[in-house]
This record gives sequence, structure tokens and C-alpha cells, in this order.
Amino acid sequence: MEKMIRFRKDDLRDYAVRYMERFSVPEADARIVADVLVAADLRGIPSHGFIRLHSYYGQRLARGHMKPRTEMKVVSETATTLTLDGGNGLGQVAGHRAMTRCIEKADQANVAVAVVHRSNHYGIAGYYAMMALAHGMIGVSLTNSHSLVAPTYSRTAAVGTNPISVAVPSGKEFPFVLDMSTSTVTIGRITLHEKMGEPIPLGWGIDSTGETTDDPRKILRSGGALLPLGGTDMMSGFKGYGLGVLVDILCATLSGGLNLTDVGGPDEAREADVSHLFAALRIEAFRPLAAFREQMDRLAETLRNLPRMDGQDRIYIAGEKEYENVRQNERMGVPVPEPAIVEIRKEGERIGVPFDLIPVSGN
Amino acid sequence: MEKMIRFRKDDLRDYAVRYMERFSVPEADARIVADVLVAADLRGIPSHGFIRLHSYYGQRLARGHMKPRTEMKVVSETATTLTLDGGNGLGQVAGHRAMTRCIEKADQANVAVAVVHRSNHYGIAGYYAMMALAHGMIGVSLTNSHSLVAPTYSRTAAVGTNPISVAVPSGKEFPFVLDMSTSTVTIGRITLHEKMGEPIPLGWGIDSTGETTDDPRKILRSGGALLPLGGTDMMSGFKGYGLGVLVDILCATLSGGLNLTDVGGPDEAREADVSHLFAALRIEAFRPLAAFREQMDRLAETLRNLPRMDGQDRIYIAGEKEYENVRQNERMGVPVPEPAIVEIRKEGERIGVPFDLIPVSGN
Repeated sequence: MEKMIRFRKDDLRDYAVRYMERFSVPEADARIVADVLVAADLRGIPSHGFIRLHSYYGQRLARGHMKPRTEMKVVSETATTLTLDGGNGLGQVAGHRAMTRCIEKADQANVAVAVVHRSNHYGIAGYYAMMALAHGMIGVSLTNSHSLVAPTYSRTAAVGTNPISVAVPSGKEFPFVLDMSTSTVTIGRITLHEKMGEPIPLGWGIDSTGETTDDPRKILRSGGALLPLGGTDMMSGFKGYGLGVLVDILCATLSGGLNLTDVGGPDEAREADVSHLFAALRIEAFRPLAAFREQMDRLAETLRNLPRMDGQDRIYIAGEKEYENVRQNERMGVPVPEPAIVEIRKEGERIGVPFDLIPVSGN
Repeated sequence: MEKMIRFRKDDLRDYAVRYMERFSVPEADARIVADVLVAADLRGIPSHGFIRLHSYYGQRLARGHMKPRTEMKVVSETATTLTLDGGNGLGQVAGHRAMTRCIEKADQANVAVAVVHRSNHYGIAGYYAMMALAHGMIGVSLTNSHSLVAPTYSRTAAVGTNPISVAVPSGKEFPFVLDMSTSTVTIGRITLHEKMGEPIPLGWGIDSTGETTDDPRKILRSGGALLPLGGTDMMSGFKGYGLGVLVDILCATLSGGLNLTDVGGPDEAREADVSHLFAALRIEAFRPLAAFREQMDRLAETLRNLPRMDGQDRIYIAGEKEYENVRQNERMGVPVPEPAIVEIRKEGERIGVPFDLIPVSGN
């Protein structure tokens, strides 16, 4: 693991706002982007956090590949559905607005689904799903992304890591928050193994001939690809492949966006044209919310108390580790990988928004 | 593979109807059960087909563990949502009615979600999802089931194989039909390896200590369990575990049914109390259906034409193999495993519904 430096979460957010404003992002929108980025670091998902402020968002704004003002258009709307054109603005802003509208609609109609095309990378999928929790709703958030995953029997990447997130309220327990890519692992895990000079387990990815490989460089640097959740065909990788394509269909085909290899990657000099889907279900329409919450608590308790395999001292429920990370990081400061800080110091200086944050003591 | 004997699909359906009627199932309901069972055999999923007519449905009806008349009650209803009590009737009848209502609601409200508790095993999840296709809708079908899958770090089964099915209409192409359990493999795959005396790949299941095993008997006969999609933690099995629990929540917690280990297995002398979720999305509410269909066709074409790994001559899309099975089996006759025929001959005779079907020639 890289060295982490901890900062106060409000400091990180405020800096991200100033940074985004430098690229003409309106303050309210910059606050949304900052909140989504810092939420990733708080939850222990640094790959989608502050580290992307320059490397993804800043660079693409500077080069004009995405627009600082998220001017969205309603393509189609009913009491329960919404199709939006994201106007090549910020994915976080598009996501936040679409999910907000979804929740408003579900408040009236009990169920709502919103899709967005012509958007950009929106950070952690879970952020938008979790927006439903405070409203006694189940939230769903899906997005497609540029190709990194090889369909079963293919030897090239053609599907994004297309995450699925569903957030479900509970009672005394933390909420259930599933937030998972539909690949075996993220590209970040492969990169980390490459940096450490370590082989990867067979089943994470393939080389350019389609064979599983333990060499991270063959995946990253010579035409390989990630495998879908499951891994090889023998291990039911076709299910992860099916889920990845399903996410692509629900986001892009339903919204009229781009599918598969047509979605732009972070380094491509053009609109990314990412698509998202959001949904909200009002629990009270199905059954009394209090009874639902109690039953969610019992579910967590049952799972937690199952007999464990040797050497394991806990059984986790989806979102539990992230919930604990948030509690710890709010107390100790939000950890940001050191290379991200080195980069932002340089880039911030260059664009006139010097990174002057003081790490929390104890670093 | 076991020897398969082929029959005309109408013959199989008619026999299943007569068999179910013998247990006082009303004819219209028996027709639904028969159609769902034969659809599984047609699609090449014999584990969920005719083989279950006696071994699951007949036995449970005979013993009074489920009711021949599916008297459902509406627990809660809005324009977009429906919560039903399945009255411990037939899962297929409950599923068919709930999905029919879902489609009617989505026809008016564009989106609808129905949940059912106090139901039983409903056969292939895909059947109900596919009901939406003829209406220009995306169909969703989920069900929980008795525990067979071990949560990550647990050493006992506590989650069902809880399948996810989503069906999406296309244009000239066959529809996209994802229909997958959230375990690595089904218990049937393990049983087949045991019968053949063959080891299983590491990652399909664990022994009673929680260690992965290549011995099918340790999974089937001495306290082992299946692993969730992904397999071990290292291979991201926690994602399959998360998906399995998600299905359990959406079906059972949302409907007020039973979760996890409380769901009854096929051999338990009590109500199974299985729960389902169905959803329908009217595509035309999001964008013109014709454009959606065209884009679905292009998606299939793109996937099909990707460069293949050595030794593979095709890349499949979810539902494609099953679609081809249906075409072949409608022409050649529906294959049923020989042991299922031996059993139904004996049982049919015993209850006064002799199995007098003539196999199609060429067997």
C-alpha cells in the first residue's frame, strides 16, 4: 500500500471546490463533486477519491473534453420515469440531480427510474444509491464505463467495469450498501500488484491471446483485459459478463447513450458519453417501514452470528467495512495516497490554486 | 450427462396438467405450472424442468406442504406497487399472476414492482422476466430459496442460490435474457460430478471447515456449501455473496417474507415460504421502442464480432444458447433426463395418472 496522508474532510472538500471553480465549475456544482470525491476516500475507496481531482476531472476540464457547466436537458419524462441528456457536464452533478429527481418522483409515485446519457465518470456508484436512505427508500445506481473487461471467450476488453450499487435502509444497524464492479477486481488492484512486482491470482485477467495470466503487465501493457466477476467460463465468468452487459443496456441502451467500446476512456480526446441509471423504491408502499427496518436488523444479526471458517473473526455485510472506515476516518482524518498529494501540489501551484492544506497531526 | 428421451412439448405439458389436476390443482393453474416446467426443458435447463414434477411439486402437494389452490391475498397495492401473500400455493401460479399484474400496472404507470411472500419454488426465474418482452417492456424476476451458499468467511450455507433474471426486448435478434444464480454453480453441477466420480474445480464450494474443496461429497454430504459467484474472497466471492443477500432483501424483506436460513427446503415438512420480486419497465416511456430495439441488435452484433480467444468459435450473449436450444428442441422434441421418466412412470401409475407418452422417433 502507498503511504496515506490524512486531512480534515472539510479542508479536502473546500480545496476541491476551489480547484473546480478555477475551471469555471459553478460553486454549488463544485460542492457536489467535492462531496462525492471525499465520500470515496472516507469510505476507504481511494481509487475513486481525491486522487482523481486532477488526473481525471481537472485534466478533462482543462482540455475541454468535458464541460464545467452541467446543462442537462429532459429528453422524456413521466410521473415515474425520466430520461436526461447530461450535456457532457460533470457526472457527479448529473448523478446528483437525476437521483434527486428520482427520489422526488418516488415520493409521489412510490417507484421511479431515471436514466442519463452524455454524462461523464460519476465517482462511486454507492453515493447516489445512498441518497435514497434518508427518505426510507431503496436506492439503485448503475453506470457504464470505458471497456476494461473481456466478454467470455473474447480476447479483448469490450465491457466496462460497470458497477451495481443498491442501498437499503435498516434500523439500528448501518444500512446495507452493495457497491461492486461487475469485473473480478478493479484495474487499481492490478496496478498495485504491478508496482509491488507481485504476480496476480489466475482468474483476475487475461493476456492478449485470451489466456488467464498471473502477470499484471500483460493485462495493463500488452493488450490484455480484466475478467468479469467469476473469472473464467469454468468459474461462471459468463455471469459477471452478463451482469456487465446488463448494466450497459440499462444505462446506455435505455437512455440512448453509447454502448460497450464506444464509451470514451479517461485519456481519449473526446466526449466520454457515459450513461447512468438511478432508481428509488418507497418501502412504505410495500409494507410498514418500521417492520422493514427491524427485519433488516435481524438479517444483519443472523449473518454476523454464523459459524466462521478457521482464522476469520468476522462475517461482514455489504457496506459494513465502508461504514466503519467512515467512522474511523471522520475521527482520524481522511487518508489520501501520498502520490495524489504530490501531484495536486504541483498542479494546484501551476493553475493558481496552491494546495495549502495542513495534514492532521499524527501523520 | 444422463441419457435424454425426447417428447413432443404439447404431450409433456398435457401430462403435467393431468398430473397436477390429480392433486386438485385447478386446470388453468396446472397449465401455468406445466408451461413453466416445459419451458425449462425447452431452454436446456432440465434441472428446473419436468424432472421436478414429482420430486418437488407432486411430493409437496401429496404431503400437504403446499396448497393446490393458490389463494393469493393483496397485502398492499398502489398504482406502481403490489405486495402479495402467495397463500402457500404454487410458486408458478403466484409468479405468473404477480408478473401479469406488474405488466398491467407498467402499461399504465410505465414502471411497476410486485413482491410476493408465502410462495413456493417457482421454476426458472427467466420465465416471468420474459413475460414482459411481448409488451415492449424490460422484465425482472428474482426469488430467494433455501440456503445452499456460504457467505464469505462463513463455513455454513445461509443464502439461497437466489437467481437474478432480467429480460430485454431486441429487434431482429433474440432477446437478451440473463437468468443466473448468484452462486458459482448450481447444486446440480456438483451432483453430476459426484455421479461421475470426478473432482470439482477449487472455488465451487467449501467443506464443513470453510476450506475450498475439490470433493463433491464434502459439499453434498458432510456439511459443506456452495460458494457465491466469484468463489473465494480473493476472487471477489463477496460480490456474489452481496448479490445473493440483495436478492433475499428485495424478495423477502420487502414483502415481509422469511430471510436466509428460515426459507424451507424441498424436503422440509413445512411451508417453504419462498419470496419473489417482479418488475416491469415500459421502454417507450424512456425513448422510442424502435430505436431501442435497433440499438439492442447492434449491441449483440458488436459482442458477436469481437476477436475470440484461441479454440473458441463463438462469443455468446445472455440467453442466446437457450434461444437456440428452444429452436432445436421444438423441432426435435423436448429432452427429459431418463431417470425422471423412470420415476414419473412409477409415480404416475401409483396415483392413477399413467405416463403413457410416446417418445418422438429417433430416440
